[in-house]
Amino acid sequence: MKGNNPGMPRCDDLQNGYRIWQDPGMFCFGVDAVLLGHYPRLRDGDRILDLCTGFAPVPLILSARARDLGIAVSITGIEIEERAVELARLSVKDNGLEGQVRIVTGDIREAVDRFGAASFSLVTSNPPYMPVNGGLVGADPVRAAARTEIRCTLRDVVSSAAKLLVPGGRFAMIHRPFRLPEIFGEMRSARLEPKRLRLVYPYIDAEPTMVLVEGTKGGNPGLKTDSPLIIYGDDRQYTEEILAIYGRDGAASDP
Amino acid sequence: MKGNNPGMPRCDDLQNGYRIWQDPGMFCFGVDAVLLGHYPRLRDGDRILDLCTGFAPVPLILSARARDLGIAVSITGIEIEERAVELARLSVKDNGLEGQVRIVTGDIREAVDRFGAASFSLVTSNPPYMPVNGGLVGADPVRAAARTEIRCTLRDVVSSAAKLLVPGGRFAMIHRPFRLPEIFGEMRSARLEPKRLRLVYPYIDAEPTMVLVEGTKGGNPGLKTDSPLIIYGDDRQYTEEILAIYGRDGAASDP
Repeated sequence: MKGNNPGMPRCDDLQNGYRIWQDPGMFCFGVDAVLLGHYPRLRDGDRILDLCTGFAPVPLILSARARDLGIAVSITGIEIEERAVELARLSVKDNGLEGQVRIVTGDIREAVDRFGAASFSLVTSNPPYMPVNGGLVGADPVRAAARTEIRCTLRDVVSSAAKLLVPGGRFAMIHRPFRLPEIFGEMRSARLEPKRLRLVYPYIDAEPTMVLVEGTKGGNPGLKTDSPLIIYGDDRQYTEEILAIYGRDGAASDP
Repeated sequence: MKGNNPGMPRCDDLQNGYRIWQDPGMFCFGVDAVLLGHYPRLRDGDRILDLCTGFAPVPLILSARARDLGIAVSITGIEIEERAVELARLSVKDNGLEGQVRIVTGDIREAVDRFGAASFSLVTSNPPYMPVNGGLVGADPVRAAARTEIRCTLRDVVSSAAKLLVPGGRFAMIHRPFRLPEIFGEMRSARLEPKRLRLVYPYIDAEPTMVLVEGTKGGNPGLKTDSPLIIYGDDRQYTEEILAIYGRDGAASDP
């Protein structure tokens, strides 16, 4: 991993055969994106949209998973920051994925007008976590927008996903546990029934720091909660499960 | 623990200084009630109501906790089954708790008319878990009503609790994780904002089987999720945390 010189893009190894370009002066993707990229089950023929894609770590991970599964999927990432889109497109080209992955600049609130309703079978998102009224907003507008709901709220993400999905389509998101009641509420209001949940705990005796959730468009009630995903073992090293999905020398920032 | 002769009440040691009478021919309380009894934080002066109290394990555990904390609380349990009420009252008398714990016969849907709105500071419940349409209903109507929502639904429990609580009052419930989206939905509809959540996993690598949730009447959004509560360790023995709250030779049925 190279140093963090503001404004200088850096290229990291995703440990899955692909490389990713990012600008540490803007933000860097974290373990959140890696976990999200490994969360949804993929199906042959999936048309996937990643909302708030940033430097496109989720599309790149999904692409590698589809390659390993030997299935064909198409992946679109949408991102409002021009600079992030540039670097995401560089990664797509660098990895030779132009035929499968496209990155578009845009506001997710206009995604339905752009792509059409019911045009994807899977929508993913690692959106900003913090409500605007919920805490400090730093001076840097790019970093602030990556963390707080300045340009895109939970409701924007969920309602856009619901419109963009075909009936039976899946929505997969990573978020913070403190917002889980709102997450479920927004999903159910949008007819995205929560079907799978997994809590991510840094240690076995700690509070969870992340939550993975999947909903089905028009699904029936009935949530399946998975075993706890624990990041560090008693020895303060990554657990085997994290090593398996995160890579032995993963490129993401520490969780 | 004595044998299960149908119709014959049996008396178990709650491992907290109290004994509990129950009729194994009807049903027996389980680890669910024990976990719920240990979940809410108690405050001096709390007026507590336990909905669907059964043989009153939750009131008896709460009473013992208040005794150990040296605080004064009053506890009411409401139960629709006459036979369970009889045995619950026997336990109250047997433990000398007549001045603190009262058990009333009644339908929780009439509890607001009976006790008045905003008359409790803490409402607890270990209600039936299964929707009526959700599975088999056995031939025995008493057992069936303890498991399925024949006479009392999730909505009945939550909406009654909301009306019975003072502003800022707490509602604590144990339920099944598969209903968590509905639980949060009903709670928020009733203005019982979910504030605490804990998932109970039988093993560290298993799906959770129970969920403990606490809401505050009129609270602001913001959920705190606790560390996982794990019942059995790698050695298949109770974890230290379970032993601490459950007793080394607890009376409840196995989880």
